[in-house]
Amino acid sequence: MSVNEIIKKRKSIRKYEKGAVVTEEQIKTILEAGMLAPSACNSRPFQFIVVRNREKLEEIMKIHSYTQMLQTASLAIIVCADLNLQNEISEGYFPEDCGAVTENMLLQATELELGTCWCGVYPKEDKVASFSKLFNLPENIVPFNVIAVGKPAEEFGSRGFYEEEKVTWID
Amino acid sequence: MSVNEIIKKRKSIRKYEKGAVVTEEQIKTILEAGMLAPSACNSRPFQFIVVRNREKLEEIMKIHSYTQMLQTASLAIIVCADLNLQNEISEGYFPEDCGAVTENMLLQATELELGTCWCGVYPKEDKVASFSKLFNLPENIVPFNVIAVGKPAEEFGSRGFYEEEKVTWID
Repeated sequence: MSVNEIIKKRKSIRKYEKGAVVTEEQIKTILEAGMLAPSACNSRPFQFIVVRNREKLEEIMKIHSYTQMLQTASLAIIVCADLNLQNEISEGYFPEDCGAVTENMLLQATELELGTCWCGVYPKEDKVASFSKLFNLPENIVPFNVIAVGKPAEEFGSRGFYEEEKVTWID
Repeated sequence: MSVNEIIKKRKSIRKYEKGAVVTEEQIKTILEAGMLAPSACNSRPFQFIVVRNREKLEEIMKIHSYTQMLQTASLAIIVCADLNLQNEISEGYFPEDCGAVTENMLLQATELELGTCWCGVYPKEDKVASFSKLFNLPENIVPFNVIAVGKPAEEFGSRGFYEEEKVTWID
């Protein structure tokens, strides 16, 4: 499928086939897509935690109420920012960089017929603190979001649409 | 081409065929891709300014030194955040939302054989102030970045790569 078709197909999936296998090759393809996103000064200020451990997934659901789709998802990927990789010019751009990283991952997963759900963590201070504690993260590593991944048990189909009122043309 | 191929093909293009025509249909396809990105609480906290006016492009280059590729690009799209569209839950997520919006646009443009270059504005306060003044933006509209768009006069080809050291597996 084309990029255009995949962009129109992608949506947040909240129901998955419990116990479905997502292969390591598929996970690495998704991670690679994330690592190929652009970043300010090509600083690549990101890290990833792949959680397949069921107890850890339960703990995530306890500290982040919007991640209950992990009950049926096969795994979670936590995108983290690495603040040590910023320089003077790229400083402060990590949220948008990690947003681009995440979107690449969601599109790549959709192409693999896998469902995803992007659950925000940063910049909510309480959530950042909870995830930092749960994963014992050093100060420079900021937990950015949780991406649920699994085999969808609901239909794809974007809720987005073109809205001309959001566009100003300067000719 | 597949999403995987387009993600691997996309790169920041800084040399364009000057005067090349990018059609309104192509521009709207790129904007639509942006508007189909996910956003916190589906708040869609974005707006777009499409600049084809040559004098305005010159003014952008004056206030943002990293946008000199606009000399040869056909147009610029300025992604803006609309802070009024945030609610209590989605508040603060607009930078990552706009990052996902932008990445969708870059990938869609690549599929159309168009080059792009993402030039950051937010959160650099001086740049935000300059763009707000140049485009006479109300307080709730935050200029987020400038995307140069044009027909590439250099080869595509991502600089990104998979890096296993950036991944922690919790099984």
